[in-house]
Amino acid sequence: MRDGAPPASRKRRAPVAGQALRLELDRAPEAPPLYRQIRDGVRAAVLSGMLSPGTRLPPEREMAAMLGVNRTTTMRAYQELVADGVVEARPGRGTVVCRPPRQDGAPSGLYDRSAWPGGTQASWLLELPALGRGNLGPDPTLLRDISALSGRRDLISFAAGSPAPDLIPLAALQQAVARGLERMGAMGLAYGPVEGLDALRLALAERLAQRGVAVAPDEILILSGATQGLALAAHALVEPGDEIVVEAPTYVGMLQTFSVAGARLIGVPVDEHGLRVDLLPPILTRRRVRLILVQPTLHNPTGVTLSPARRERLLSLARRFGVPILEDEIYADLWNDGAAPPPLKALDRDGLVLHLSSCSKTVAPGLRVGWLAASAPVVARLALAKQFSDLNTTNLGQLTLAEFLGSGDYDRHLARLRFAYAERRALMLDGLRAAERYLQVTPGAPGGFYLWCRLLGGSHARLLSTAAVREGVAVLAGEAFYPPGLGQDGRDHIRLSFSGTTPPEIVTGLSRLRSALERLPGSLDAAERADHRLRPVV
Amino acid sequence: MRDGAPPASRKRRAPVAGQALRLELDRAPEAPPLYRQIRDGVRAAVLSGMLSPGTRLPPEREMAAMLGVNRTTTMRAYQELVADGVVEARPGRGTVVCRPPRQDGAPSGLYDRSAWPGGTQASWLLELPALGRGNLGPDPTLLRDISALSGRRDLISFAAGSPAPDLIPLAALQQAVARGLERMGAMGLAYGPVEGLDALRLALAERLAQRGVAVAPDEILILSGATQGLALAAHALVEPGDEIVVEAPTYVGMLQTFSVAGARLIGVPVDEHGLRVDLLPPILTRRRVRLILVQPTLHNPTGVTLSPARRERLLSLARRFGVPILEDEIYADLWNDGAAPPPLKALDRDGLVLHLSSCSKTVAPGLRVGWLAASAPVVARLALAKQFSDLNTTNLGQLTLAEFLGSGDYDRHLARLRFAYAERRALMLDGLRAAERYLQVTPGAPGGFYLWCRLLGGSHARLLSTAAVREGVAVLAGEAFYPPGLGQDGRDHIRLSFSGTTPPEIVTGLSRLRSALERLPGSLDAAERADHRLRPVV
Repeated sequence: MRDGAPPASRKRRAPVAGQALRLELDRAPEAPPLYRQIRDGVRAAVLSGMLSPGTRLPPEREMAAMLGVNRTTTMRAYQELVADGVVEARPGRGTVVCRPPRQDGAPSGLYDRSAWPGGTQASWLLELPALGRGNLGPDPTLLRDISALSGRRDLISFAAGSPAPDLIPLAALQQAVARGLERMGAMGLAYGPVEGLDALRLALAERLAQRGVAVAPDEILILSGATQGLALAAHALVEPGDEIVVEAPTYVGMLQTFSVAGARLIGVPVDEHGLRVDLLPPILTRRRVRLILVQPTLHNPTGVTLSPARRERLLSLARRFGVPILEDEIYADLWNDGAAPPPLKALDRDGLVLHLSSCSKTVAPGLRVGWLAASAPVVARLALAKQFSDLNTTNLGQLTLAEFLGSGDYDRHLARLRFAYAERRALMLDGLRAAERYLQVTPGAPGGFYLWCRLLGGSHARLLSTAAVREGVAVLAGEAFYPPGLGQDGRDHIRLSFSGTTPPEIVTGLSRLRSALERLPGSLDAAERADHRLRPVV
Repeated sequence: MRDGAPPASRKRRAPVAGQALRLELDRAPEAPPLYRQIRDGVRAAVLSGMLSPGTRLPPEREMAAMLGVNRTTTMRAYQELVADGVVEARPGRGTVVCRPPRQDGAPSGLYDRSAWPGGTQASWLLELPALGRGNLGPDPTLLRDISALSGRRDLISFAAGSPAPDLIPLAALQQAVARGLERMGAMGLAYGPVEGLDALRLALAERLAQRGVAVAPDEILILSGATQGLALAAHALVEPGDEIVVEAPTYVGMLQTFSVAGARLIGVPVDEHGLRVDLLPPILTRRRVRLILVQPTLHNPTGVTLSPARRERLLSLARRFGVPILEDEIYADLWNDGAAPPPLKALDRDGLVLHLSSCSKTVAPGLRVGWLAASAPVVARLALAKQFSDLNTTNLGQLTLAEFLGSGDYDRHLARLRFAYAERRALMLDGLRAAERYLQVTPGAPGGFYLWCRLLGGSHARLLSTAAVREGVAVLAGEAFYPPGLGQDGRDHIRLSFSGTTPPEIVTGLSRLRSALERLPGSLDAAERADHRLRPVV
């Protein structure tokens, strides 16, 4: 029987993606290059399930004719799709849509038992299963390594996303903690409510009201940093195997936290106006998306901000498909040119938006205080999950922040902060002009911590980051900011943070970076450069 | 076919537990009552898998004859086993071992979607799956409720496991935080290493050395409270569905945290010498146990301490079966009669013991600082999991504790604390003598926070706790301290905490408790009382 399979079934060809794949190309001069539009269109169709695994793409020549483009354009698009693992070239069958990569149980990095240091007598450890169900991306220890690097005195770090020590309002916080302990007495050092101290929830509700968000204090959950908000959402709102939409690129910790919790990440590209909301409808139609994660304002790592039109559309899609949105807005107060756009939560009439923020970027990460504003049932659910994570957030940090907010110190501090970061950002942009042969800066919104730079020489961001450390400056290669399978897109990008370094350090650091760039082999050829200059900034 | 099942298979009787169930009864006068020994023996055999589901127990009369006891004794044992859900009486088939209760996916309490408050427009919430995979026990919000109760000014709380505000060393900590911030400057408010501040890890390593534990600073992971240690172990060392051994009774948060993470809990009884280590071998032989959770010193809720002989035996079993032990020792420094016994970690030569503690009971819960000492690979694994939970523990709390430990303040404070708690404990023991008609106190080791009391009137602890709140005093019913299926054992116990109340409050609180006891219906009959007085204290 096994050998006698009917010849008909052998000959059966895979279905061909013809009309199903309606790609509309934008031929305006400022539009992304055509090959990239084709690549992204096919990828979106695969991600949305419109093109199912096994479907054949039209041959390159046919596709080129169909779309009225050069054959080299479709060839390049197909090559990148193959490199991304979205499609594969099968001999005699053409180009076929791959199965999505298995995300569960895949061991990775330190979580892989084979990576455990030897020599321990605790042999039971070696038997432990891979910890996360998810793919942690190329570098699960990245955040920790950044943190370790930032302790090296000789190294100038454009890698870490932390405020510079000189911009932490030490004196004001010393006073705030002393005042807060004086006011609260021993209760300031006791256990507190899981949901957080009332004084802080009230102060935050008032600040949110100023940005157009109407929430009661009991619709705010105090967190041990925004990271805890991601972890609680990942464990309490998402089941292992559930699909969620993430921006590509996005904050590494967001990818890792949800991956570890077993979520399957659907990466949707970000361009200069933020998340490509136009790519969402087919995804939301065909997949069962549990949550959309978005950084609408001063996005990490790109610095871009979601346009007002896209905000409206995103909310209307969330409503239509009943999918909640988790917005991470930790950089919003660092908008340094007038008022930042109102958060998505300000537009939310349906309790669909969870608004996440923290004081780590604006006041001091060492306080470890974040918060989440959402409907009361969501807050109740996440509070219960928080109880099993760390009982409650430190009262000491909470009372310090409450004092700092209440005293007016925060507003004075913000004014100083915005000015200082604007200066550092301008200084870095200036300095990077001397390196424009090598890299191109994404024009982001005014504020935040980061510049997202494309390497004109090609996909060697990791090579560069290694060379840079040798020169005494740390930068982050872009790959880690992409969900599994999309890392290719980051290979020609680096993230530079201007927040954690003083102006003189920025100058020295950039000169070290230029040395690293100059010493890298493989300068770029003219055609490559010309092509890259046309690329969209993401 | 369906109707034509052969009659033979219908008639097939379940296997009978005969010789497999070798119960050895202890007839010494101080031994537990015989019915209870039988009940515990059968339960241990079921838990260990020695008696599989469907196995029939010998009829009560046969069992009585086999063991040489009265038939009423086996009858009572069987009744309790039925009430516990360990066995069931099936008409015509006798008494049969039940399937273990399903622990995964069972909705419970707030995690059950049907329990969501109505009226929200966020209808997607209603579709959310039950959060935990585990059974959260009768009352998942218990810890939060305790926390909320403790804010009610008119209520005297013997419920909460927190230090009294008057015993938190406010002035010394105010100085410690000021000194620490002076010393560390802005770095004290920055992000810190995931593993914790070096100064604190060093100070803790030195203190552990004084108790016979030889660990290097990098074998210590700083945590956001001991609760986080439980949560990290539950997520990083245990897979959903894995079996772990817990004490019965034990700390509620331990049961909940591991249940939520999807672990299956095997409850092993605790008696006046701590965990019944003698019951472990068959369990470890027949089940694949991933972790043994134990509070060897000043156990919560019973106050008992694991005997030296059992400590040795527990470690030797852990070695033989390659099963790690997580010891929670947060009360050990509160031993108020000479030195506390060395922790299990002091006896560990094989990297099998994870030693968990915190400063929440001894210094101030509001600092939210705990720690775990283990082999370097375990620390590395848990640190990675911590990174995805909250990045790092607040520097502010860490530097405060490091200063406090380093200054000698801690030792002075401990001396004061031990004296104060010894006084409160004695006062409560004294006061309870006036209630000895109603309850019997477990003689625990000298120290800790708790007295574990058995209600002589029977299983009405919940009723009592409700009545007590009406009188203005909060106590905890024992049920919540037991893993799923064993809660029956707690129905006649309450936990009284003497830590969170001043001496005058203890006096008033006890008088209120007596009122509640007196007003409860159902005074106990003489036979019942006689029987109870023979029971072992657990």
